[in-house]
Amino acid sequence: MDDDRSRKGAEILAKLHAWGTPRVLEPLEKVAPDMKDMVRDFAFGEIYARPGLDLKSRQLVTVAALAAMGNTSTEFRAHVHGAMNVGWTREELVEALMQIAVYAGFPAAIHALLAAGEVFEEREKTEGGKV
Amino acid sequence: MDDDRSRKGAEILAKLHAWGTPRVLEPLEKVAPDMKDMVRDFAFGEIYARPGLDLKSRQLVTVAALAAMGNTSTEFRAHVHGAMNVGWTREELVEALMQIAVYAGFPAAIHALLAAGEVFEEREKTEGGKV
Amino acid sequence: MDDDRSRKGAEILAKLHAWGTPRVLEPLEKVAPDMKDMVRDFAFGEIYARPGLDLKSRQLVTVAALAAMGNTSTEFRAHVHGAMNVGWTREELVEALMQIAVYAGFPAAIHALLAAGEVFEEREKTEGGKV
Amino acid sequence: MDDDRSRKGAEILAKLHAWGTPRVLEPLEKVAPDMKDMVRDFAFGEIYARPGLDLKSRQLVTVAALAAMGNTSTEFRAHVHGAMNVGWTREELVEALMQIAVYAGFPAAIHALLAAGEVFEEREKTEGGKV
Amino acid sequence: MDDDRSRKGAEILAKLHAWGTPRVLEPLEKVAPDMKDMVRDFAFGEIYARPGLDLKSRQLVTVAALAAMGNTSTEFRAHVHGAMNVGWTREELVEALMQIAVYAGFPAAIHALLAAGEVFEEREKTEGGKV
Amino acid sequence: MDDDRSRKGAEILAKLHAWGTPRVLEPLEKVAPDMKDMVRDFAFGEIYARPGLDLKSRQLVTVAALAAMGNTSTEFRAHVHGAMNVGWTREELVEALMQIAVYAGFPAAIHALLAAGEVFEEREKTEGGKV
Repeated sequence: MDDDRSRKGAEILAKLHAWGTPRVLEPLEKVAPDMKDMVRDFAFGEIYARPGLDLKSRQLVTVAALAAMGNTSTEFRAHVHGAMNVGWTREELVEALMQIAVYAGFPAAIHALLAAGEVFEEREKTEGGKV
Repeated sequence: MDDDRSRKGAEILAKLHAWGTPRVLEPLEKVAPDMKDMVRDFAFGEIYARPGLDLKSRQLVTVAALAAMGNTSTEFRAHVHGAMNVGWTREELVEALMQIAVYAGFPAAIHALLAAGEVFEEREKTEGGKV
Repeated sequence: MDDDRSRKGAEILAKLHAWGTPRVLEPLEKVAPDMKDMVRDFAFGEIYARPGLDLKSRQLVTVAALAAMGNTSTEFRAHVHGAMNVGWTREELVEALMQIAVYAGFPAAIHALLAAGEVFEEREKTEGGKV
Repeated sequence: MDDDRSRKGAEILAKLHAWGTPRVLEPLEKVAPDMKDMVRDFAFGEIYARPGLDLKSRQLVTVAALAAMGNTSTEFRAHVHGAMNVGWTREELVEALMQIAVYAGFPAAIHALLAAGEVFEEREKTEGGKV
Repeated sequence: MDDDRSRKGAEILAKLHAWGTPRVLEPLEKVAPDMKDMVRDFAFGEIYARPGLDLKSRQLVTVAALAAMGNTSTEFRAHVHGAMNVGWTREELVEALMQIAVYAGFPAAIHALLAAGEVFEEREKTEGGKV
Repeated sequence: MDDDRSRKGAEILAKLHAWGTPRVLEPLEKVAPDMKDMVRDFAFGEIYARPGLDLKSRQLVTVAALAAMGNTSTEFRAHVHGAMNVGWTREELVEALMQIAVYAGFPAAIHALLAAGEVFEEREKTEGGKV
């Protein structure tokens, strides 16, 4: 059973190219290796893997939630990458983050937009303009 | 111009049946009437009215942002109503709110689910089971 | 020395008619009586009592800080009372709370305004319209 | 395997008499029954059940975390009950919550103390003074 | 009408030398140029420009709100600059930020004080000791 | 009396080797020297020094509170050092921080674990492996 959710979590992470990237989980492995597995097994294998809401919508929920909480760290950027990998466009994400200003204030929205902007630049450079 | 954004804001509020309901804005009118107009003109007429992200996706952003911030007040419930009015199903919203547990913790997700549950019940009663 | 800061704290509380009211501190006395004294001695006797910023400005800092943090509880209302007792008008406080929307989002500002509105009503009734 | 973590989670909940109480989870069952199971299986069966930190210390972590986040809802009260059921005294919990004032401000500490005070009263009445 | 609020917003920004500085808004222009205009038009042209509360008091509200929310980023520093540009002294701002410890905890106050300290140093160097 | 709490605060800081380190308080001394004394006198001399909860438990409360609030700054790291100096093991602290995921979300727990991981590495290097 646990193998099953690990497998499902890994599959979703492969689609998102998000949390699975070394930037977020590599240093975690050293201090709390079980936590790294738990992210894959619980967050992605048990929650994200549930039917009832498609992966693209789930990714919008995550980006909105993190932005509203003021989280602009590495995992926010990884999730912006993930959102684009599952079909959200740069313009749509900019709109979603501007809307955060209404609910969490302008500073939260601005910080999220600047972090997303760095992701857009990175993708332009490394993926031949696929933004 | 201001008339234009007021009109656009009122149109979107009419689609959402959300912030426009007396429950949220009536008491505001007494203490800060300009603020009531500002919600309609800025939040809905200037942000929500922007092209680039469809209304249904915008409503998911709002519900996710409020839930992540621990907001389960009247306006959260009004936005759950709005989300259903623009096409999200009960099952999809439950999934979106369960996912909040990953990013904002179980208590935030649970409180949001309980508040959404009250909206679902209310709609079952008042709208002939349209949930 | 401790008597000195207790005395100063009590003096400031008397000016504010704020935290010193039974609504906030009476129930605290039962569960944590030392905490009640600490509010008077530290918060008011040691911080508020410092020279370098006048009491009226200090009260605006407190109202803005609580509103930005989403605090609309009994002590927020007590501090709105306090703000009016040291000279801020109803109009000025409404403006200050509307401005919170820019930094902490519209819901925080709206909740603070509604709570302040209840204080204004209460004062109209009990103080012969002195708002 | 899942049966195993469900069993472990249920065992811990039985020791805490906390989240397992109807007050927190009954209404959740109606709106999101899987979420109710997830709390038992993941939060208690997978996290709390881990060796490496004893149950009594874990309960102090939970009470401190919730208080610092301004959570004084039903589950905070359930966890105060739980903390006393696994050996923390009323005096120790009051001290822990007073300390929260240093890190999260006086209002968070005061609200947590008042909620804990209600738990203490409830236990005095229903458990013959066992506080 | 929009031209009017843009003009008012630009006027206030010129007085504050705050958000208008390149450090905050330049990178925003690249990722979300409309957001940059919205800050000027809405935050400054529509909210800050309202009569009923003077600019100096408004700036104290902003500094207190940001500090209470744990925001010590570039825009907090820009607003500390702005506060001094409209008449608040170094001593008054230190007092206001120390007071934040009571409501948002010592860490929030300390972080805000350290960020303000960097502004004070910067001003000493670049403006011939005008602090 | 004030000398008494200053002395007690200094004693506790010496045991924790925490806030007393130059990294947290040195820069504070320049911008707000009274705040530096207030941390020692109030936070440690008046709160931490109270009987009723042992120092080791107090340190777990602080680490849990800071992690739940998303605080992974210098003072969080200083308190992780402090926690180990009064007897908590690396394994116990990792467990406590993993548990934060349940209440404040995975990102808060992950960030706290990574910050704690840096403390563990630092101690391995500078204290001959005493972790």
